[in-house]
Parts: sequence; structure tokens; C-alpha cells
Amino acid sequence: MSSETKRSALMPFAKVGFIGAGQLARMSIPPAIALGIELHMLATGFEESAARANVMTHLGSPSSQDDISLLAGTCDVTTFDHELVDVEIVAELEGEGMLFAPGASVLQVSQSKRLQREIFESLDLRVPDFFVGKEAWSIDDIEARLSYPLIAKADRGGYDGRGVWAASSREELEAILHSLGQAGLEPVIEERVDINREMAIIVARSRTGEIRSYPLVETIQVDGMLAELVAPAAGSDSVKAEAERIALKIAERLDVVGLLAVELFDSRGELIVNEIATRPHNSGHYSIEGCVTSQFEQHLRAVLGWPLGSTELISPFSVTVNLIGGGAPVTQEAFVESLASSAVHLHWYDKAWRPGRKLGHVTVLGDDRDETLAIARQAVTRMCGSGGRT
Amino acid sequence: MSSETKRSALMPFAKVGFIGAGQLARMSIPPAIALGIELHMLATGFEESAARANVMTHLGSPSSQDDISLLAGTCDVTTFDHELVDVEIVAELEGEGMLFAPGASVLQVSQSKRLQREIFESLDLRVPDFFVGKEAWSIDDIEARLSYPLIAKADRGGYDGRGVWAASSREELEAILHSLGQAGLEPVIEERVDINREMAIIVARSRTGEIRSYPLVETIQVDGMLAELVAPAAGSDSVKAEAERIALKIAERLDVVGLLAVELFDSRGELIVNEIATRPHNSGHYSIEGCVTSQFEQHLRAVLGWPLGSTELISPFSVTVNLIGGGAPVTQEAFVESLASSAVHLHWYDKAWRPGRKLGHVTVLGDDRDETLAIARQAVTRMCGSGGRT
Repeated sequence: MSSETKRSALMPFAKVGFIGAGQLARMSIPPAIALGIELHMLATGFEESAARANVMTHLGSPSSQDDISLLAGTCDVTTFDHELVDVEIVAELEGEGMLFAPGASVLQVSQSKRLQREIFESLDLRVPDFFVGKEAWSIDDIEARLSYPLIAKADRGGYDGRGVWAASSREELEAILHSLGQAGLEPVIEERVDINREMAIIVARSRTGEIRSYPLVETIQVDGMLAELVAPAAGSDSVKAEAERIALKIAERLDVVGLLAVELFDSRGELIVNEIATRPHNSGHYSIEGCVTSQFEQHLRAVLGWPLGSTELISPFSVTVNLIGGGAPVTQEAFVESLASSAVHLHWYDKAWRPGRKLGHVTVLGDDRDETLAIARQAVTRMCGSGGRT
Repeated sequence: MSSETKRSALMPFAKVGFIGAGQLARMSIPPAIALGIELHMLATGFEESAARANVMTHLGSPSSQDDISLLAGTCDVTTFDHELVDVEIVAELEGEGMLFAPGASVLQVSQSKRLQREIFESLDLRVPDFFVGKEAWSIDDIEARLSYPLIAKADRGGYDGRGVWAASSREELEAILHSLGQAGLEPVIEERVDINREMAIIVARSRTGEIRSYPLVETIQVDGMLAELVAPAAGSDSVKAEAERIALKIAERLDVVGLLAVELFDSRGELIVNEIATRPHNSGHYSIEGCVTSQFEQHLRAVLGWPLGSTELISPFSVTVNLIGGGAPVTQEAFVESLASSAVHLHWYDKAWRPGRKLGHVTVLGDDRDETLAIARQAVTRMCGSGGRT
């Protein structure tokens, strides 16, 4: 009998830490339960989405080195519900031998739109034409190369459409740059790409180097936030192969451990890399029911260096529609009514209602794209009234 | 705006109590998380399977009226991880207005093999020829009608092959009857049916009366415990329709709220009812991945009176192989190794290892019955060595 068999039968097979306790951490709980993994979460309050569903919650701040150290010191590996964590802290704790996935070097890239643009360009990937580095250019330089409307982004901190503005004139651009400067944020200025559609692809890369790609999916954004998703994306095999090639290239270059989600623009048949996330992503929620292995289970396997699961689709189409906070909270009556279509998979994030906030999502699988989408939309309408907003 | 919208956004949509915190309660946690249901569990210790994964655990005894009352008083409806609960307590608390599903009258039947036999016979369902009621017969009466080997069962308390004996002679039968008498247990004596194969079917019946049937499945028992399962069972449409007719008949007759699992013998093409369970059942674990709506989510919907989900299979075949405790605990190395086949869905119950104890299960979906079964068996062998036992 090996020494390993002497472990207590009630010792979990692994302990994984989550910095942050939002819906991504919450949806990681079911696969953790199935795989005998103990999740430890660093939450700022017990009312947070995942803190309400997870047994081991540590109250603390994602800005506190002590709190992160306590979490990471308890766990075999620590991962992230969000990127709003100080890279210096992660780097220092890595130096002390604690394991993070993604690690500090990847985290730094996922936090910075500027770094992302620079790295993608260095990998010969097509990106929107851009200007970064406050001192390196003047507005005249920008106007000489790009025309309005332009897109201005904060280098860091933005998500779900926040931190992104369109400037249709020099005056508007100057105002945005002034605001960013006041906030101490570095601007990324770029061309507004002519987009036929938006797409996303997720790859999982294990600590062992094993790597698997999920199917390319099509996303529909409203106000910069994912509203609907169809898996797989329509399109030729060559487009799908190109998307996979891009994602694998970035994952290998960054040495990602865990998931990498790549948001892509389809611009007249050409794939342009928009931005990345190195964690479970809204564009992968469909995989809970739609793929053999969900992105959440896959992320846990990957960060632990366990074998990856199959990423195959289990149905011709999987469709996700987000539930987004509108004018009033969802009533229990409307919630239950949304379950009346027997094919609907409902995921409620158990978050306090707020207009514009992601409160949950609905996934439906089926053989017909439009029919499947119609069932998902109907469930959302039943819960929220029209427009996919509560 | 209706008064309902005034509820706190952080109030769960429902609270469901579980008496007992074994693996059935544990596997109910993921759908509860998805549906925003708060589960409250009555556990005898925090080391129990579901108590290790659920936020709201109440330490107490399933034999204590106070403990059950506290649980049921907290919840909208209370259900069961096991049947070892005093029916009188449940009946009394129902009288006080607390809601149980199944209720006391169904619980009483599910606890008693004698009552089951009598009810099934009254429904004109085929059951093994049997003798019940200690005073109503002598061994001579039994021998006049049935021949050895006979099956002797304790009326209540048995599960997974416990509480069942084969008697191959009058002496053995007398010894068993003597032991049962000593233990204060009523005997059920029955013919040993010539079994071609064992099968099971689950139906869900909502508090509203809505009813849905899962597919008929084939089960392979070892030592009276489910070892392997294939969904759907091979066989003609008429056998499947007959199984469904039996299950619906029992569910309606008992006025079941929640799940009803019916264990069936296929004896030369004829379906014989063995016994029932009125809760999630081992023969439905495949449905977590294999059906649109898992038995665990369905049970929660049913006891709450919410609309039921689709019970359709999402793959031609789903196969489950149980992980049963053998000579030594599962090592972490073996556990991780079992994930190497990318199609494997592993469910670990996080229970202390004990020989003969169900520690988990593996489910695999596929287009080919034998291939799918081979993959599942291989995963179990990787974890446990040969024979499906650790």
C-alpha cells in the first residue's frame, strides 16, 4: 500500500481557492462537488453570489495581501472570479511558493488592454489599429491615421461595456482623454472596426500543458454586455480553424493555466482579436449543458493539472440568453413561470437586483438554431417581460 | 407592481428541507444552486456527504420530532434523503400545517415491503407470490404453495441488499424467521422469481399533479446493490409502455409528490414489481448528464409544485457504474487517473471509505451501448482496480 492511501478518507482530493465570489465562482461549485474538490472563496460579504452557495467562505478583500495569502496558503491552487487583483501581491506570494492559476504574468496581461494589443500584434494577429502610451502620440497623430468615430478604452478596470466610449469628434475624444487622465487611467485609442458579428472561443490549458479547444460561438452584445449566444457559430471550417489557431497561439504564448476566452470580431470574413479573459467566461456558460465537460469543471481540472475533459458539443445547437436586471426585481411567480417550457435550463445567480446587472441566464439545447433561440428568449420574456431585461 | 415584487432580492425563491444528508441530498445541491433554492439539511454530523457541501446544515436526529419540526418549520417543503424517519412524527407535523413530500401516508408505504406488496396486488400488478402477517400462516402453508429457495425479507429497514436473505430449506427459513422475530421485525416471505434481468423506472409527480416518466432502464445488481445501469433498457415499446403504466398507476394511487422509483423484474418478458422508493434513486443518477432534466432537479421542482422539466434522453445511451468501497481507500493518484478518459463524468460522494459502501459513480454517454459501458468500467477500474470495488 502506497503512503498515499494513508490519507484520511475525508480529506478532499484538492482544495481550490477563488478570489472573488461572483457567479463564475458560484457556477464552479457544482463540478467541485462532483469531483470532491473543496472550494475556498475570498468574498467581501456573505451576500455575494458564490458565498451564498459555498461552504468555505473567507471574508476579506481582494486588495489585501494578508487575505489572499491566507486563502492561497490554505489551497493547493488559487484562481480568480475576476481580474481586479493586484498583480504585485500575486507575484510576491508566488515567490513564497503559493500557486496561482493564472499566475501573475498572465494576470497582468488580462488586466491590461494595452498589453493585450501589443502581445497580439507581436504574434501577427489582426487587431484593431490602435494607439497606446500617453506620451507617444498626439491627437494629430491619431487623426492622421484613423477617422472618427474612434473607440477609446481605459487600459484596465472595464468590463461588460464599462470603460469603453465612442468618440465622434476631436472634442469628444479630448473630453474622454481628460476624464481618463483625471482618473489616472491610461487610454487605448483604436479604430472602430466594421463588425459583421462578434464571436468568442475558449481554450483550456492544463498545468501539464494539455490543451483543448471549445467550439467557436457567436455572441450578441447589447450595451457592451453579452445578451445572447449561439453555439456553434455558423461559418466555414476554415474560420473555425483560424479562431482555434488564434486562441491556441495566445494560450501558448502567455503560458495560460486554466481557461482562456478570446473575444473576436468577424470583419468581412476576417477575424480580429478584441480582448481576452483568463478565467471562465460568459461566452462559455452554454457549456454547462451544451458540452461534455463544462468550462467550470474544465477550469478546475486545468488549474489542478488534472486530465482535461471532452469539449465536444452534445447537441447541434446550444443557446444562452442572459437575464439582465431591468426596471424591477424578478417576482417568484415570474421565475417559476419561466420554467414552464420543459427544455429550459435556468441558472439564477442569487444576486441582489440592480438595473443592468447580470442576474442569471437560460440555456436551451436543440436541433434547430432559431427554434432553440426562440424557446430561450420566451423563457426570459416570461421572467422579465420583453427585451430580456427584468 | 404586485406585492410580490417587494420581497427582498436576496430572499431565495424557495427553501427545501432534506431529512438526511447522504449522497442523494448532496447531488440535489447543484440544481438547487442553479434554481436559487436554499437547501436546509438535517444531518447527524458535519462529515456527512451532503453536509460537507451544503451551506445550511442543521445538526440533529431524524428520530427527533423537535429537530424535524425545526427543519420543516424553516422550509417551504421538506423531503427525504432516506426513509428512516418516524411516520408518526411526519403525520403530526403535517397536522400542524408543515409540508412534507412525500407525505406521511406515502412514507409509510415506502418504509414497508408488506404494504407495498399488498397495494401493488390491489392494483392488479404482478408481484412475487408472498406471505405477510406473522399470525396468518404457518411454514406448512408456505411450503404448500411455494418451493425452496425462498426469499425472506424484513418488512422495513433494509436497503442495498441488507435485510434480504435466501432460505434454501425449512431449517434456514426457521432460523431467519427466528432472527427477525428477535429483532422485532415482521417477515415478508416470497417466491424467488426467475429473473431475466432487473429494470427500474422513475416518474416525477408535481404537487400540481403534473406527471412525467423517465425512460425504463436496465440495472445490474451485485450483492443486492446497484452496480451498473444502462439507459434506456433494451426491449420492445410494449414493455416500456407497460413499465410506464405500472409506475404511473402506483404514483397516482399513492398520490406521490416528488419522485417514485419502481424496481422491476423482467421474468420471461413479464414485468414483476419488486419494490419502490419515493425519492431520488440510484437508478436515476445517469439522468444528471443523460436527461434534459436530472432526477435531482426534477424532485425539487416536483415537491415545490413548480413546472416539471423534460425527461428526454440527450444521447442514445447513458451508462452508470457505481464506485463501491473495497479493500482500501481510493488514492488521489487513482482518482485523478480515472479522469483520463475525456468522456467520463465522475461523481464523488465525499464519504469515508468503508468496504461495500457506495462512494461515488461514473456516468458516460455515447452512441454505442457496449463501448459506453466499457469506458465507464475502465474509469472505475482505473480508480479502484478490477471489479468496480476500491
